[in-house]
Parts: sequence; C-alpha cells; structure tokens
Amino acid sequence: MQHFRSVNDVDNIQALLRKAMNAKAAPMKNSQLGKGKTIVLLFFNPSLRTRLSTQKAAQNLGMNVITMNAGQSWQLEFEDGAVMNLDRAEHVKEAARVISQYADILGIRTFPTLKDQERDYGEFVLNQFVKYATVPIVNLESATLHPLQSLTDWLTIVEQKKTAAPKVVLTWAPHPRPLPQAVANSLVEWLKKTDVELVITHPQGYELAPTFAEGCQIEFDQKKAFAGADFIYAKNWSSYFNYGNKPEVELDWRITSEKMALTNSAKFMHCLPVRRNVVVEDAVIDSPNSLVIQQAANREFAAQAVLESLLKNENL
Amino acid sequence: MQHFRSVNDVDNIQALLRKAMNAKAAPMKNSQLGKGKTIVLLFFNPSLRTRLSTQKAAQNLGMNVITMNAGQSWQLEFEDGAVMNLDRAEHVKEAARVISQYADILGIRTFPTLKDQERDYGEFVLNQFVKYATVPIVNLESATLHPLQSLTDWLTIVEQKKTAAPKVVLTWAPHPRPLPQAVANSLVEWLKKTDVELVITHPQGYELAPTFAEGCQIEFDQKKAFAGADFIYAKNWSSYFNYGNKPEVELDWRITSEKMALTNSAKFMHCLPVRRNVVVEDAVIDSPNSLVIQQAANREFAAQAVLESLLKNENL
Amino acid sequence: MQHFRSVNDVDNIQALLRKAMNAKAAPMKNSQLGKGKTIVLLFFNPSLRTRLSTQKAAQNLGMNVITMNAGQSWQLEFEDGAVMNLDRAEHVKEAARVISQYADILGIRTFPTLKDQERDYGEFVLNQFVKYATVPIVNLESATLHPLQSLTDWLTIVEQKKTAAPKVVLTWAPHPRPLPQAVANSLVEWLKKTDVELVITHPQGYELAPTFAEGCQIEFDQKKAFAGADFIYAKNWSSYFNYGNKPEVELDWRITSEKMALTNSAKFMHCLPVRRNVVVEDAVIDSPNSLVIQQAANREFAAQAVLESLLKNENL
Repeated sequence: MQHFRSVNDVDNIQALLRKAMNAKAAPMKNSQLGKGKTIVLLFFNPSLRTRLSTQKAAQNLGMNVITMNAGQSWQLEFEDGAVMNLDRAEHVKEAARVISQYADILGIRTFPTLKDQERDYGEFVLNQFVKYATVPIVNLESATLHPLQSLTDWLTIVEQKKTAAPKVVLTWAPHPRPLPQAVANSLVEWLKKTDVELVITHPQGYELAPTFAEGCQIEFDQKKAFAGADFIYAKNWSSYFNYGNKPEVELDWRITSEKMALTNSAKFMHCLPVRRNVVVEDAVIDSPNSLVIQQAANREFAAQAVLESLLKNENL
Repeated sequence: MQHFRSVNDVDNIQALLRKAMNAKAAPMKNSQLGKGKTIVLLFFNPSLRTRLSTQKAAQNLGMNVITMNAGQSWQLEFEDGAVMNLDRAEHVKEAARVISQYADILGIRTFPTLKDQERDYGEFVLNQFVKYATVPIVNLESATLHPLQSLTDWLTIVEQKKTAAPKVVLTWAPHPRPLPQAVANSLVEWLKKTDVELVITHPQGYELAPTFAEGCQIEFDQKKAFAGADFIYAKNWSSYFNYGNKPEVELDWRITSEKMALTNSAKFMHCLPVRRNVVVEDAVIDSPNSLVIQQAANREFAAQAVLESLLKNENL
Repeated sequence: MQHFRSVNDVDNIQALLRKAMNAKAAPMKNSQLGKGKTIVLLFFNPSLRTRLSTQKAAQNLGMNVITMNAGQSWQLEFEDGAVMNLDRAEHVKEAARVISQYADILGIRTFPTLKDQERDYGEFVLNQFVKYATVPIVNLESATLHPLQSLTDWLTIVEQKKTAAPKVVLTWAPHPRPLPQAVANSLVEWLKKTDVELVITHPQGYELAPTFAEGCQIEFDQKKAFAGADFIYAKNWSSYFNYGNKPEVELDWRITSEKMALTNSAKFMHCLPVRRNVVVEDAVIDSPNSLVIQQAANREFAAQAVLESLLKNENL
C-alpha cells in the first residue's frame, strides 16, 4: 500500500492481520528494517494510545521518531488559493512537502470540526496532506476514520473469537460531549470485509453515514441486539444527519451487567478513552470479559504491521 | 526494588549510592542493558533537570525514551467509582494499564494540590498509578517526596564531605510563592538513614510533617543552626500545619555571605530552580563553595542508578 | 568553531559549505560520530523546519536528541543581579549550566522582542546562554540572526547558480504582521562573504541595520532591482529604525509573475513559512523556478555540517 488512510488502501487485509500477529509474537524481529529512517508524527489533537503505541512500534522497527504537536509550530492554511493575510502562517502545500524532506513516513492526527460535514467527510485536512506530501501518510485518526484502531479491534476479535463468525454488536452509548463518528465508521468499514456477523444498535437519530451503514444490520432495540452477541463493542458518536449534535435519547443506553447478561457471555470492547459509569458500568469494564487493555496493547502491533508494510513498500 | 517512590522502596541505599558512583565513573558501561526497553516519562507539571537528566540517564542505558506532558492528552480521573460525566476523559485505571503495555518503566511527576493535605500526603495520584500500572513506577517528584533529588543530594554530600559525619543544615528560606514540602521531606527521610548530623532550621509555623521531622534536631534560630555547619541546604517550603499557606515571617531568612561566615566553610546546596537574591544572595550561590551545579550534574547518575536497578530487577 | 551564533564564528565558510555538500551526498557517512552524544534543542518560540531538520541532522550523526519547549519548564530570568521575586523561577545562569551537564551541544531558538532594540541587537538572550553554558551553542534563529538558514540559502544558490557571480536580489515583501529582521540580516552577512552580486530592495523606511546594510547595493525601486536578477529572495521584515513597526507602504511589493518576468529567469527563494498571495503569488512559488522546497531540504545538511564540525571540534 502507498498510504494508510483507510481499509481501502489495503489490498490484502488478511496479510496485514498476519503481519500484526507476527509483530506481536516477535516485536524486535525487524528491528533493523527502519534503521536510518524517520517517522514524523504530527498531532493536531490530543492523543495517548496512538502517540505511545505508534512511537513504540516505530522504535521496535529501529526508526527514529519525531513527534510534533501542531501547537509547537504555527497554524496551517489548508485552502488552496488562499490569500494568507490572517492567522495562518504556513500553507499545507509547503508544510507537507517540507516535512516530507525529513521524514520517510508521516503520521497525522486530525479530528473533525463536527460543524462542516462536507469538509469532515471529504477528509479535507488529511487529503491535503496526502495531496502535497511526497511520503506515505498514516492516519492516526482523522475526521471520519481511525483505521489503526479498527485493525487492532479486528485483531483482538480474531484472538478471542470462539467461532468462525462471531456476532459482534457495535452499540452506541451515552457521553457528555459530542464525539466524532470515526471509530464507529472505521470499525464497520473493516468488519464488513471479515467473516463476523455485525449488528449495529443505536437510538434513532444516531444513524451512521450511509456509506458506512449500508448493508449492515441495524437494530434500534439495544437489548434485542445484545441477544446472543459474542462481542459488545461500545462507543459514543454524535449524530451524522443532525451533524455533530446530540439529539436527546430517552432510554438508558449505558452498558450494564444486566444488559451483558443478555449476551452469549460476550466480551466487552471499547477503543478508550472511556467515561466510566457513563458509557459503561465499572462492573462491566472491570470484569474478566473486558478486552479494553488487550485492545490497547494490540495498538502497538497494528501500527507495527502498517509501518513495516510501508517501509518494505509491499503490495499489500 | 519494585518501584522507586521513596527511600522506603530501597533495601540497600549504600548499594544504590555505589551504583550511582559507578554510573558517574563510566556512564556508558551499561549502554546495552536497556536495549529494546522503553521508559515513558509522564509530566503533570513543569520540569527542567528531572526531564533532561532522566532522559539522559535512560539513553545512557540504551533505552528508548518517550516523554509526555499531561497536556498532550486529556485530563485523567483518579477517583475510583467516579461517574465520569464532567471534564475528565480517561480514568487512571485505564491510562496506567495502557501505558504499561508500551513501557518497561513509567516515571511520573505530580505536584501537590497544597489544598487537600490528606490527598497530597496520601500520595493519591502517584499511588493510583502504582495501583494500576503493571510496570515499575519512578517518582519524578510527587506531592510530598522527591527521592531522585535526595539520592543526588546525598551523593553530592558524600563526594564533598571532609569528615565521616558532617553537619548538614537544612534551612528554610524565603520565596514569593507557596511551594511543596517534597524536597525537604525527602532529604530528611534519606539523610536520617545516613551518618550525617542533620539539623533542620525554619521559622515557627514551618514545621515539617511529624513523620519526617520526628527524631530530627530542630533549631528555630537560623544563625545558631549555621554554627559549625559543613553543608547548608537551602529550600523554601510552605506550611504543613497551616497547610499550603505562607504564614508571615519576621526575620530575614535569606542565605547571605554573612550567615555563611558562621559555618565551618560550609558548602552551599539547593535543588534548583532557585530564586536568586530571594532565597540566596548571588554572592553565596556564585561562590566556589556552591554545589548547585554539581548537584544538577549528579541527577543524571542518581536516575541512572535507579533505572539500572529496576532494569536488572535487583534486590536492592 | 566554538559556537555557531553567526557567520563570524566560522573561520572557513567554504569548508563548511563543502561539509554540507558532503552530508547531502552521504547523510549517514558519519552516523557513528555522535554516538553517546546528546543535543538539547531549546525552543522559546515556534518552529517547524528548524526543529525537524536539526533533529534529523543530529540523528544522522547518531546523536541523542532532546527537544524542549520553554513552556515545558518555567520562565527564565536573564538579568544578572535580579531579585527574583516575580514570575521567573530560574536564572539562565543556572539553566544554561545545568543543561550543559546533560548536553554536548545546545541549540537555542529565541525571537526578538521587536520592542527593545538594544536588547534584541545585543542578542541578550542568546548571549546569556553563551556566557553561562559550558558547551557549544547553536543559533536556531535568534533575535537578529538565522545562520542555519543563511548557510542553507547559500548552499542552494551554489547548487543552482549558472555563473560564477550570480545576481541575488533580496527583496522586502508585504506581511500582515511585524516580523524580525533576522533572516534578512543573516543572509546579507553571509552573502557578503561570497562571490554573489547582492542587491537589496525595500521601501524607504525598511532599511536594515547599518552593520548589515553597509557596503550593500540598495535599490528602492523593486522593478529596477529585479532587472537581470538570477535569484529573487523574498522576505518580509519590520522596520529597524522605527523599531519593530510596519510603516505604511504605497506600492505593491508582492512578488508576482509579472515582476519575475523582469529577471534573468530568476529562481525564487524564501525561507518559509510564507504567506501565499501576500508575500508571493501562487503562480511564482508554484513555478518550476521556485526553490523553496530545495531550501527546506538543505536545512538538514546545513545543520549536519555545523553539528559535525562542533562534534569534531574542528578549526573551521
């Protein structure tokens, strides 16, 4: 693959999954591969897992890592043709090409506005970097997608599944703030390409964008959705159609032990960070069925698989 | 030792001191020990010496270093059982366990509130990390202790002492802002376990917490305390009993040449940063008897001794 | 050289240029030179190119790199003899000497106040570091100079020139904010020592400081200046004599295709970041004659030449 923006950049996701498994089995096996190579990780938004796990993965491969927060430089202009007489001191056209002079791979984290749907769903910022950079771009969570998380999640499901086609329920859950749809979109996009039986449950008004929801089983009754589930993947997202807003929800969508009892002893998953006792009860996330730490651990190996593939310039 | 939170985590402080001396004599001798290992340094508060010296020490040992400022991520919740519907996006229970997936050692800097004595003296934040992390924790200055500084200070005293049991005077000094008691507490805790004769001098109202002050010679007359001193260790701290406040002080407690003349040609020590001409006169800190730069230099080797011991999982 | 503050620290600029060319030809040739050595890069101001290129250069030489933003620590006091009872927690006298304990080379970025000309043109902050540090200092852009940029620019001119003594025009250009004079001062200082024919063009009121302007051809008519130029180097700067202000300018000083047509098919240069369509039209910076990305790429090798020379302690 040339870039890692979404699952659509990957020709052979099974090969990428195996690569992640191999990295987990022997993290230092390719520790010479990235020797003398540099990855720049550019954060327009906060990060904990992504920052640490991608840095760790790159170091496992022997790469030099330069992390940079957007605030350590100046504001970038992204609009082509702009007359730059306001706050933005440098155009992405220069910034992306300049960083490409020093980097072999460039990772970008850029969250959505949650106000301008067209800009967000056009992945304006990420795509301007792709347009102007001359090195591979890795999506460290963009306006609408978080593919490193999805690859991790899929790896975790494969490690834990007891049947060939487990039932995975992606369930909306409450949150005090309006959140991106990226994790949900991306998970759906990846799992559709696998053997799992995917069911999405959310309150009316929280439908995902048609591109992602299309072809999925949607169930508005959370309890019905939970029946027989092998995996419960909880995540909040704000409304797509009432863009970036949080229409009121009548029922209690928190993930509770009571609801988990409806499942087939389902494993509990969440990408983190998670609001305890808002998204999910302590009793659920602290139970032996909780996979959240294993998911976080797998972030390192998903990132390592992607970086390894980009470094090797593999047809994958 | 399993963690390095305080002197009480160290079984054999003499062995640790020797290890620091050896690191100073040959900093790169163990440069393969940390190969492929990662230390994450997490700063909830500003740092200069600790950040640089710990990073340097880790790199001397061949480790990968990832520094992270709390502000690069989101606010953490530390209260168990919290309903997280306000500002704090992630619980330490996840954060500590997640970072442990990527780190072999985790360093934490977390200053006191200076408002909630119970929380501070219970080392609430540090202990929540210890409780939930699954890797060794290194205290990079916590609410009430700064053991890397104390080990450094002791090393510096040992390097400079002319008699087996030098007289060390820890003296309170003025400061425009209310400061933690950590450096003073920690120094006392360490020096009590050594052969030095320790005298603490401070204005009434600035007594250290009983756990630390207990068994120490206390002298309210600064000049009397200075008589015959071999080392003057200056430090400001706010009140413990009138917690976090700065009760007015009548006399001038600044360290002056005049006062230094009362000593046995004492060496001057301070952990830095120091407010010149408030805590100490230029003439004193700039004199040949000033050890402040040597102390700072020794921070590297104190940190290196601790990291080396944790990497080797030594019974120390 | 002992430090790299300005061209005046370099005895043999031709040798330094050749070293940069060699670094570009074989960046990893000296990858063992900096083994076990550490560079600390201290930023009092934002940076993109300088941060990344210097870090990359240091890593090419095998050095450990520690970057630090002033905001990760506390405010420094720079005035000798200050009574430090206000906001500034540490004196540069300690900070510089302490960092020198952990660093083999110290890079500093410190912008001008644009208010206090004497302080700025005395390079007060940089010189206090030079005064108190005990390791070589590298200027990462100071109040009045940016020598890493100038060495880069000269290298780019040498790579691109078609005649022995090309005509290089440094032209003032518009900008919405008052900017330092550092890039212009420094370029002039370097190019005066080379074979190029240097012409400076700017509106009246934007004269550079006499030390720099002295001996240069000055032309107030931008179009006249452009005639026959081989290189157009555009840069905004605020007024030196009306210090830090932006006296109004009547004519349009933007760099346009129309103006470029007056030149000898001149190459376009700018240090970046650049305000597109304010400083320069898109059509010019996007033309094949634009060298801005090559300049940025060369920053790595200019920095590498300087670091290599300092590491080798060469008489250069």
